[in-house]
This record gives sequence, structure tokens and C-alpha cells, in this order.
Amino acid sequence: MPNPTAAMLVIGDEILSGRTRDANMHYLAGQLTETGIDLREVRVVSDDRDAIIAAVQALSGAYDNVFTSGGIGPTHDDITADCIAAAFDTHIDVRDDARAILAEHYAKSGSELNAARLRMARIPDGATLIDNPVSAAPGFSIGNVHVMAGVPSVFTAMVASVLPTLTGGAPLLSSTLRIERGEGDIAGPLGILATENPDLSIGSYPFQKDGKYGSNIVIRGTDADQIATALATLQAQFPA
Amino acid sequence: MPNPTAAMLVIGDEILSGRTRDANMHYLAGQLTETGIDLREVRVVSDDRDAIIAAVQALSGAYDNVFTSGGIGPTHDDITADCIAAAFDTHIDVRDDARAILAEHYAKSGSELNAARLRMARIPDGATLIDNPVSAAPGFSIGNVHVMAGVPSVFTAMVASVLPTLTGGAPLLSSTLRIERGEGDIAGPLGILATENPDLSIGSYPFQKDGKYGSNIVIRGTDADQIATALATLQAQFPA
Repeated sequence: MPNPTAAMLVIGDEILSGRTRDANMHYLAGQLTETGIDLREVRVVSDDRDAIIAAVQALSGAYDNVFTSGGIGPTHDDITADCIAAAFDTHIDVRDDARAILAEHYAKSGSELNAARLRMARIPDGATLIDNPVSAAPGFSIGNVHVMAGVPSVFTAMVASVLPTLTGGAPLLSSTLRIERGEGDIAGPLGILATENPDLSIGSYPFQKDGKYGSNIVIRGTDADQIATALATLQAQFPA
Repeated sequence: MPNPTAAMLVIGDEILSGRTRDANMHYLAGQLTETGIDLREVRVVSDDRDAIIAAVQALSGAYDNVFTSGGIGPTHDDITADCIAAAFDTHIDVRDDARAILAEHYAKSGSELNAARLRMARIPDGATLIDNPVSAAPGFSIGNVHVMAGVPSVFTAMVASVLPTLTGGAPLLSSTLRIERGEGDIAGPLGILATENPDLSIGSYPFQKDGKYGSNIVIRGTDADQIATALATLQAQFPA
């Protein structure tokens, strides 16, 4: 059975303007690979209502799971929760369970649960809360979409809350062979190996570093023996 | 006049598997902001023909410029050029101008211009070559799509070749105010400021670092005076 599929939606002007370098995509990609969920597509869109709704609907329809990052804080540019509700044509308002979490958190910290902070308790009807052990304000899952914060420490914690609830497949294994030859010399044998092993994904990632050049050949699959055999074939063709 | 718009398409299994952390998106985002071209969307797709073609067509139709990264090397998984030709319904084959560039480069380096390397001279009819001062094999522009390499050093060099040929708008300026208060305390005044300045994009990016917390408020726009006035308003409300 093929692994479940996933897409990620990163929401935030700060990524698209170049101000912030996104870290969540790389983190989630690694976690999903370990879990046996195939990340097939990532989209980054700005804090724009129409763009967010269109992307959520497209990705939610095309993949088994969708993970979003960003736009669930208390400020005016945090519009993700409302957009998700609109994408699912669902009612959204401050929900008692989320309000209780925030009330407890701000009571402890001595901050006021004002109107802005209360926006973080806006949760679509029917959604399940995602625990936020870092700063309390929860994420949520609705349908196949998991809505998480953009701040990397919170995103990481929310991923840890969500992933155990999902059904994964066989973890993707990989082995890498470093070959100090031009990609153009490797390409012929590599193409044959790829044709002979349709179950494996074989990638070539060239490098130029410290005066040396060559390519890292990465063989990915779910069968360790098959990967080892393919690697050995390549090693025999390109002895170090 | 609004600035021209752009999208980026990152092509590569290695990003989606978490093996490699993409660097080109952040680089391009910064360059486009300086040039006055608004990056509105980024997509990351795998080395899959249908996925690449669909993404190129969608982005090319929706934005003024599209920049792609990855998949133009000599190995079997380098299918970008053929996918771009298919997306534009254009013929593609080894082209004499690209072949001449490769022939000269490999003659100098003493490597053979074999069948695999010759694949890098496959250029769609009507495309304009993009200079590659790092490793010779050219990128190309066709229609509003600019096809570049994934290796960051080559990508960077190709961006430098392409950007001067494009028409930009007013560079996006930004100022940042660090406020050591919870986002929930800042959100109210910030929302009013955003409403009063519809031409400015005002973002709030919370931080928690070294035992302090607060938010970096970034005010973006094309009018330096307007940004300065808005920043001063906020500073008066949240004195350090």
C-alpha cells in the first residue's frame, strides 16, 4: 500500500519578502519522512484571505494531510483560522475550550486576556484542538488540515502533538554515495540503475566544495535490502 | 502603478524529503524585494512531470514572472527543461547555441561532452539562454518563466543574470520596531495603525529569546516618509 500523502502551506508575508528564512518546511519534511508520510508539495502564500482559502481548498482536496504554518496569533494580520473556516464553509467564533486554556495561561502569567488575545480562541466548529505546551494558544485540526503556529518553537511542539494521531506508512529509508566525478560521467549508469529499480527514488545532488567536485547520489525507498543492493552496484561502477 | 508580481517554483525531491534545506527561496525573495518585484507565492514540487507542468502553467498564468529552481542537470531525474517545453506546448531538443557553450567548457576542462551532459543543451524553441558563469550549462527564459539551476551558487549567479533584464517597480522599504511586550498588548493599537495606513503592510513577528519576549513590528511600503510616520506613532504608544 502506498504511503499517505501530505502537503504543507506556509502563510506569511515575512517569508515572501525575504525578511525571515522559513525553518518549518525543512523540519516538517524530515518528521514526515520518518513517519512514512510522503510530503508531495509545499506552498507559501502571503497573509491574503483569497490566497489562503484557495490554497487550503486545493491542497486539502489533493492530498491526505495538509499542515499549515503561521497566522494564528493575536494581531490583525493573523487571519489563518478565519480563512480555514471559510475554506471549509464552517462557522467560527471564540470557543469555550480554547478560551479556558487561554484564561488559565494568562491568569498564571498576570497578563490580561484582552480582545486581541481572545482572537486566538477563535476555532472553527468541529475542529479538534492541537496542544501548545510552549505558549498555550492552541492550533487545531479540521478535516484533513492541521493548523499550527509559525514561530518555530511552537510549530515544532505542535507537530509533536499532531503526528502521533496520524497513520503513517513505511518510513522512507535512504543511503548516500559520494562520488567524486562529474554528474555527466555518473548520469549514464545512474539512469540504468533507476530504470532497473522502479521502486527506488534515485537522486543526484552535485557539489563543489573545497576544490573538489562530484555528486551525492541518494537512493531512497522502503526496502533496506533493495537500497543496499543498488548502492553496491553503483559502488562497483565508481570505486572510490 | 502596482509593482510587478512573481512566483517561484522549487523543483526537487530532496527538499520535500527533508534531506536538503532549500536556500534559494530566501535568496530570491530578498533580491526581488530590492528590485521592486512582489513575490506572491512559492511552490515546492517533486521531480514529477505532471506536478511540474501543472505548477508552471498555474503560476505562469497568475503572475508576471515565474522563477524556477532545480532539475536542469545531466541526470535522469533532471526533467525540468522538458516539462517547461510541455507546459508551453513547445518543441525541445539540443540547441546549437547551448551545445557550443558546453563544448567549449568541457574542451577546456578535458571532460567528454557525452550524451548525459548534452542533455543540458536541451532548450525549448524560442527560449533565451541565461548565462551560467559558474559551471557553463545555461538556464533559459521562455515566456514569463525563468528556469534556473538548484545548486545555490549557480542559482545565485543566474538570478544576477536575469534580474537586470526585468522591469521592477519601487523597491519595498521596511522598518522594524522591537517591542518587548506581549503581542496581545500590541495587537489593538497595531490594528488601528494598519487600518489608518492601507498602503502599508504591517506585520508582527513574536520572539522569545534570552528570557525576554515581545514582537518585532515590521512596517513595509514604498514611501519612506509614510513608514517613518507610522513607526513614530507606534514608538510613542510603546516607549522603550
